[in-house]
Amino acid sequence: MEHTDRTRLRRKAERGSHDLETVHAILDAGLFCHVGFAVDGRPWVFPTAYARIDDHVYLHGAAANFGLRTLASGVEACVTVTLADGLVLARSAFHHSVNYRSVMVFATAEPVSDPADKRRGLMAIVEHLVPGRAADARPPTDAELRATLLVRLPIVEASAKIRSGGPIDDAEDLGLPHWAGQLPLRLVALEPVPDNTVPEPAYLRAWGRHPER
Amino acid sequence: MEHTDRTRLRRKAERGSHDLETVHAILDAGLFCHVGFAVDGRPWVFPTAYARIDDHVYLHGAAANFGLRTLASGVEACVTVTLADGLVLARSAFHHSVNYRSVMVFATAEPVSDPADKRRGLMAIVEHLVPGRAADARPPTDAELRATLLVRLPIVEASAKIRSGGPIDDAEDLGLPHWAGQLPLRLVALEPVPDNTVPEPAYLRAWGRHPER
Repeated sequence: MEHTDRTRLRRKAERGSHDLETVHAILDAGLFCHVGFAVDGRPWVFPTAYARIDDHVYLHGAAANFGLRTLASGVEACVTVTLADGLVLARSAFHHSVNYRSVMVFATAEPVSDPADKRRGLMAIVEHLVPGRAADARPPTDAELRATLLVRLPIVEASAKIRSGGPIDDAEDLGLPHWAGQLPLRLVALEPVPDNTVPEPAYLRAWGRHPER
Repeated sequence: MEHTDRTRLRRKAERGSHDLETVHAILDAGLFCHVGFAVDGRPWVFPTAYARIDDHVYLHGAAANFGLRTLASGVEACVTVTLADGLVLARSAFHHSVNYRSVMVFATAEPVSDPADKRRGLMAIVEHLVPGRAADARPPTDAELRATLLVRLPIVEASAKIRSGGPIDDAEDLGLPHWAGQLPLRLVALEPVPDNTVPEPAYLRAWGRHPER
């Protein structure tokens, strides 16, 4: 990966990483990303699903989608994925913190127009949301492919940031009578709400059983 | 609120809202936001904690923090809060979707320098992360206040977008043998990890019991 002024770790560099494996692992463990770009200097940030295939992040949307169309036009983008792992309660308000894993990818998107590549990218996004699902859904028709915009961004200028562990209080605060510690957070699936009578597939029950998610 | 070209709901307008109560409710239910801005046309998106007080969103960080300093310098920002409520599995890959609530606030930040306002804003962020906590932590010292940058953004140019409910498949797909329905998601707290022997406060156990979160 490239180390540029944007991926230089500015503060708390000990929490940062340019390691490609770390970046990939966080992208794979995340579910949604926030995509930023600017038009006439004015920033936009929108949430969306995504998938990683090798060294690219794939994003999709309706062909008429403003954000996707703008990305496809070649503006610079920042794709940020954040996993909230826990709240860190220190004795002092000042040292409260958050345990998280995040990745920022700076890149320019390119539209994916080859039909085979487009199918592969779109099914990767379905599979990323629900592992096991891509093989258990009606595949896109040619008309659906045309109605969908798929773009990909190279994971080249990217960095990861991770905070983990307990609170770091000042020594003189350690005896204060305030509970201190971590409140771990997890995104979990609740009971599925069926829309038909097809038996629940095993991958639905397995969702989120991935320890890294 | 102002309705501008940026908050105009471009697509799926039935999912959108400019209602201030809706915007406030989503901001209050969220935990983290993603903040975007551009420097020389290049976008940045970073995750951070926040709080809403009345008609402003408050963000904080170390006084040396690049993102916060840039915001405080008066660049335009977009603050996006997204709550992932569930995955929507349709019979067709094409109609897979996500249930979510999101808010975008377009604004320019102003630094909060009055010490009383600054204390109030910072404690609101602690309280937003863990309701009940602000009264149970050592308050910031004057030196800690000086080491912290607090900015606020007016909630004026803002919009909300909500998707809820089950899959919307094409009529001819309704009989396909693929399970369809919703997989509701929830951000939950796991067992706290204590850093001292102070008894667990009740607000820690109550975290996330708010039905709207």
